[in-house]
Amino acid sequence: MFSEYDVIVVGGGHAGCEAAAAAANMGSSVLLITMNMQTIAQMSCNPAMGGVAKGQIVREIDALGGYSGIVTDKSTLQFRMLNRSKGPAMWSPRAQNDRMQFAAQWRLMLEQTPNVDLWQDMVQNILVEDNRVIGVRTSLGVEIRSKAVVLTNGTFLNGIIHIGQKRFGGGRTGEKAATGLTEQLVSLGFESGRMKTGTPPRIDGRSLDYSQLEEQQGDEDRRGFSFTDVLLPEKQLSCHVAYTSAKVHDILKEGFEDSPMFAGRIKGLGPRYCPSIEDKINRFADKDRHQLFIEPEGWNTVEIYLNGFSTSLPENVQYKALTAIPGFENVKMFRPGYAIEYDYFPPMQLHLSLETKLLANLFFAGQINGTTGYEEAACQGLLAGINAHRKSRGEEELILKRSESYIGVLIDDLVTKGTEEPYRMFTSRAEHRLLLRQDNADVRLSGIGHQLGLISEERMEKVRKKVRDTDFLVDYMRKHAIDPTAVNGLLESKGTSPVKQSARIFNLLTRPQIDLNDLLQVDRAFMETAMGYDRETLEQAEIQVKYESYFSKEEEMVQRMKKMEEHEINPDFDYTQLSSLSKEAREKLGRVKPRTLGQASRISGVSPSDISVLLVHMGR
Amino acid sequence: MFSEYDVIVVGGGHAGCEAAAAAANMGSSVLLITMNMQTIAQMSCNPAMGGVAKGQIVREIDALGGYSGIVTDKSTLQFRMLNRSKGPAMWSPRAQNDRMQFAAQWRLMLEQTPNVDLWQDMVQNILVEDNRVIGVRTSLGVEIRSKAVVLTNGTFLNGIIHIGQKRFGGGRTGEKAATGLTEQLVSLGFESGRMKTGTPPRIDGRSLDYSQLEEQQGDEDRRGFSFTDVLLPEKQLSCHVAYTSAKVHDILKEGFEDSPMFAGRIKGLGPRYCPSIEDKINRFADKDRHQLFIEPEGWNTVEIYLNGFSTSLPENVQYKALTAIPGFENVKMFRPGYAIEYDYFPPMQLHLSLETKLLANLFFAGQINGTTGYEEAACQGLLAGINAHRKSRGEEELILKRSESYIGVLIDDLVTKGTEEPYRMFTSRAEHRLLLRQDNADVRLSGIGHQLGLISEERMEKVRKKVRDTDFLVDYMRKHAIDPTAVNGLLESKGTSPVKQSARIFNLLTRPQIDLNDLLQVDRAFMETAMGYDRETLEQAEIQVKYESYFSKEEEMVQRMKKMEEHEINPDFDYTQLSSLSKEAREKLGRVKPRTLGQASRISGVSPSDISVLLVHMGR
Ligand SMILES: Cc1cc2nc3c(=O)[nH]c(=O)nc-3n(C[C@H](O)[C@H](O)[C@H](O)COP(=O)(O)OP(=O)(O)OC[C@H]3O[C@@H](n4cnc5c(N)ncnc54)[C@H](O)[C@@H]3O)c2cc1C
Ligand SMILES: Cc1cc2nc3c(=O)[nH]c(=O)nc-3n(C[C@H](O)[C@H](O)[C@H](O)COP(=O)(O)OP(=O)(O)OC[C@H]3O[C@@H](n4cnc5c(N)ncnc54)[C@H](O)[C@@H]3O)c2cc1C
Repeated sequence: MFSEYDVIVVGGGHAGCEAAAAAANMGSSVLLITMNMQTIAQMSCNPAMGGVAKGQIVREIDALGGYSGIVTDKSTLQFRMLNRSKGPAMWSPRAQNDRMQFAAQWRLMLEQTPNVDLWQDMVQNILVEDNRVIGVRTSLGVEIRSKAVVLTNGTFLNGIIHIGQKRFGGGRTGEKAATGLTEQLVSLGFESGRMKTGTPPRIDGRSLDYSQLEEQQGDEDRRGFSFTDVLLPEKQLSCHVAYTSAKVHDILKEGFEDSPMFAGRIKGLGPRYCPSIEDKINRFADKDRHQLFIEPEGWNTVEIYLNGFSTSLPENVQYKALTAIPGFENVKMFRPGYAIEYDYFPPMQLHLSLETKLLANLFFAGQINGTTGYEEAACQGLLAGINAHRKSRGEEELILKRSESYIGVLIDDLVTKGTEEPYRMFTSRAEHRLLLRQDNADVRLSGIGHQLGLISEERMEKVRKKVRDTDFLVDYMRKHAIDPTAVNGLLESKGTSPVKQSARIFNLLTRPQIDLNDLLQVDRAFMETAMGYDRETLEQAEIQVKYESYFSKEEEMVQRMKKMEEHEINPDFDYTQLSSLSKEAREKLGRVKPRTLGQASRISGVSPSDISVLLVHMGR
Repeated sequence: MFSEYDVIVVGGGHAGCEAAAAAANMGSSVLLITMNMQTIAQMSCNPAMGGVAKGQIVREIDALGGYSGIVTDKSTLQFRMLNRSKGPAMWSPRAQNDRMQFAAQWRLMLEQTPNVDLWQDMVQNILVEDNRVIGVRTSLGVEIRSKAVVLTNGTFLNGIIHIGQKRFGGGRTGEKAATGLTEQLVSLGFESGRMKTGTPPRIDGRSLDYSQLEEQQGDEDRRGFSFTDVLLPEKQLSCHVAYTSAKVHDILKEGFEDSPMFAGRIKGLGPRYCPSIEDKINRFADKDRHQLFIEPEGWNTVEIYLNGFSTSLPENVQYKALTAIPGFENVKMFRPGYAIEYDYFPPMQLHLSLETKLLANLFFAGQINGTTGYEEAACQGLLAGINAHRKSRGEEELILKRSESYIGVLIDDLVTKGTEEPYRMFTSRAEHRLLLRQDNADVRLSGIGHQLGLISEERMEKVRKKVRDTDFLVDYMRKHAIDPTAVNGLLESKGTSPVKQSARIFNLLTRPQIDLNDLLQVDRAFMETAMGYDRETLEQAEIQVKYESYFSKEEEMVQRMKKMEEHEINPDFDYTQLSSLSKEAREKLGRVKPRTLGQASRISGVSPSDISVLLVHMGR
């Protein structure tokens, strides 16, 4: 019924969609199998993309030729650049999305990707031959062959939904759980674990008193996620802010004895940084209020997502607590919040390519690897799709460096350190975060995307031009100076000391009080030059100048680490023979099989002296 | 958590949506509870509304103030008026719809209906007190009170999906079945049965060779379903026609031994007039080909619905057979066809108001009553919603007559005769079908909608004007004549005999060869008069004239039956005391409890002589 595919992707969530698109765009014949074609790219929880560190990931996906950024831009209700007041490394784009449009756009883009076939079914088994995956078997009993398989099952594997004392099987509310696959993988030698996550109640926007809530508008100066020119919707919708109170907390506490988490019915660990409201009350007992965001679910619906109020308490407790929130006196719920427990596979069982160590040509991506979040899932999907394609052709794997992308950080963290609780990206996880900015994701990664065939020559040329133009502008600023008479008025008005002699634009711009626009206003020739460049390039040049000293220090660090990062270790190296390693290091190194000395140094339990031993032994 | 509602509607399918909207628009506080808010108003099967007799129903729903017509118009991909070559009683509007837009529009309209609240949950029980329903209990254990409850569970009650030898629980592919409710209703004394229906495979439009298929375009002269002015989408999409062949049939036959129907695994009866392809091959063994329609699923998707190829044979047989269809050589399937078996409640357990006889204030509407089709479901929902509202206020029930609407025919058929197999509407079921046309649904029913408060005064005035204008035009045609010199050229060119003296326009128009437009061309004064009227009114006048003799005969019949139809019977009448009735009649009459002598006369097993006995006894 089916001919053999190059790549089969199991699951049509954020990971699966990116995986399918990438492999297909590189030339693989791809079959995407998902349980319900009507829920492709569903946002299971909040209708939003990006945010701190996550926004950077979406920009990186886009720079590599993935689709998440484009889909996000097309379905944006509201755009905000978070952390604008902080340095540019912290700037993080975030979009509120129309939930239905987001899913519809993804499906449309997949359908328009020539090599992607779709099949609605549940995969129950993988087919294995000689420690290599060779296809899948579905619940309909269909066997389909392929050169590689990417599993992206999300929260569906043996999913159980909890609301108070009640439990239902399900992969998401209203959807069935996926069964059979975990059991088979475990019987093949994989280790599986349990995690949990939760979602807040959805409410009827008509029942809120907005006069009691703070409005939060989108940025006037809107940006997109994609480096391609996606037309952003003309209008934006506002979000609103509300607060819990001691009274709300007291009501919620009444439900604690029925809480599936506190009562121990949920065994899996939840995301520490997306805690439920009951968790927050518990852990921060001294805080007498928590902020809540009232986020619209779409252009054409009154449904509201109550960000910050994730809960699995009994629905009547949820409701009663909601009514105590100022502005929520007459609130009506559409659906209660709930928690979901699901199987995941500890990611130390993977190579950095996301291929499993146990079975060749089998890749895992997304929440199945113990992560949480659409962005984290999507970027893994992209990489797994790329590597599944390359593996099926016998080509070398693509591994992104920690110093060049958050995606590299994420995958390296997962594979090297594993994760005991749902892994979410933070800027603090990246040691070189100054370099991993949203504004330069294209500069960092488009070349790779281009080499892979995922970024067109036209797009690449745009990036090259951005680099050339930025360099030119920075150079111009280094070379050109402004007279004291022209600039001192500005400097004084901004509260910074005047200059005695004419000063280089570059030096003036490094002063924190001064921005590029200020200098353009006082230097006509500079303004005329600048007018030939677009906003992104000017911004890029400004960032380069303002943070040059930080960037160059960071670059030096990267260079210093480079030797370690590039020092490859034979994956079959036998650590047991090195008796001078600590016992723990021997064990962990043997398990992780690090690809480089750099990776080895990040394994918890491997000390600097263990690394020295390795260095000596490996002859450097 | 919930205050008491006037009306709770269980199920957000076509019946449930109309019920909720109608009751709310009449002033009831309404709670619509449905298992998944993301699937409100899903079209489970073909993405199309209307067709022969069904199109008339949608027009009737619209004339009464229901929403199905508006939703259909807003999401139309292609419009065709079927049977244009036949008399106007046969004209039937049919629209191909964008599946996603149809559901999104419905949800939007519900959200914009002020009195409708929504709750996502599964109703497991009804709450009963003194033989009266007083609310529901959900799977979350929430108890919600109401004055009336409308059950519209569709195909979800203990639904089982069959594909070849495989069986899954489910209400629709990818969705869970609803459990608990049937068992409770049976324990309360209701009788339940099993029915089945099926759906064809969905395929990848990119894999078809359209050059081998016949194109079927939409009408240039497009109409809508709604009598309000809904803006129709500008463009239309084409459908295509393909044919099975002896080869296709032979392949399908290979799967017969695994067929869940032929092997007896499916016990429920399926819709006779929407047979599966295997049924067609079996029943019409002499036909060596069947027509198939390739229908797009939406504006922005390559997914195709293969109308005419409903099947529950094993998926590999489905696939193999598809590849043998000319144009389908490289076909790719997205999802296989399947059959679904579900519980229904034989509708003789209902009053004509759709309230159950056993429990007061409990209403059933839609597929749960043994019907099939969105239109059949929607119109029952509308009536149940209206009557639930009225019952909760102690107002009299609304019962539509067989002589004024297909809806009246449908409900009278169900309640009076019951149904052993899925009931679908046909023009032949209506004895007065000449009067029940799509063009006059507004004239027939808007007055009722207006009285109920579902049709605005503005809309009603439009209908009154249409009637006035039509009457004026018909009257004009009766009074004015055309000279032989002016008209004979036309008459001869159309092959009908010339006139000697000037002839009334009315009489000329009754000639089958002549249409209104012809006469307008030859009579300048008439043309000038006509120019003041819109297309609908001119058409209406033309139909009135052309078919006047038929209509008046039909009207006479209605008048003759009127006495019987209006002769009410006390619902508590004790038929056992009338020994002169046949035994069967006594039994059936006692069970059906007909509201009128007319209804009594339609009960199978009640003979004309039984009716005479009743007439005599009841003193007329
Ligand atoms: C209730 C809930 C709350 C959440 N809350 C948060 C939060 O607060 N913050 C946050 O960052 N993230 C949250 N998430 C996580 C976020 O939704 C996921 O991280 C993200 O969707 C993961 O993407 P994925 O592609 O890995 O899997 P998913 O989006 O879960 O998609 C999995 C896909 O695989 C399909 N599938 C599964 N098994 C099979 C099979 N055997 N055969 C065929 N198809 C299969 C499913 O149908 C589905 O389409 C939450 C998720 C849920 C369910
Ligand atoms: C596979 C399939 C094939 C079909 N083929 C045809 C065909 O060929 N021709 C044709 O005319 N018609 C066909 N139909 C029938 C058509 O889909 C139905 O007639 C129509 O949808 C019935 O509308 P409804 O409102 O009664 O129920 P549905 O549209 O089935 O909607 C029922 C709703 O009730 C909800 N629900 C059910 N139980 C509960 C509960 N306990 N609590 C809360 N919510 C609940 C469900 O979630 C759903 O939203 C087919 C249906 C199916 C499933």
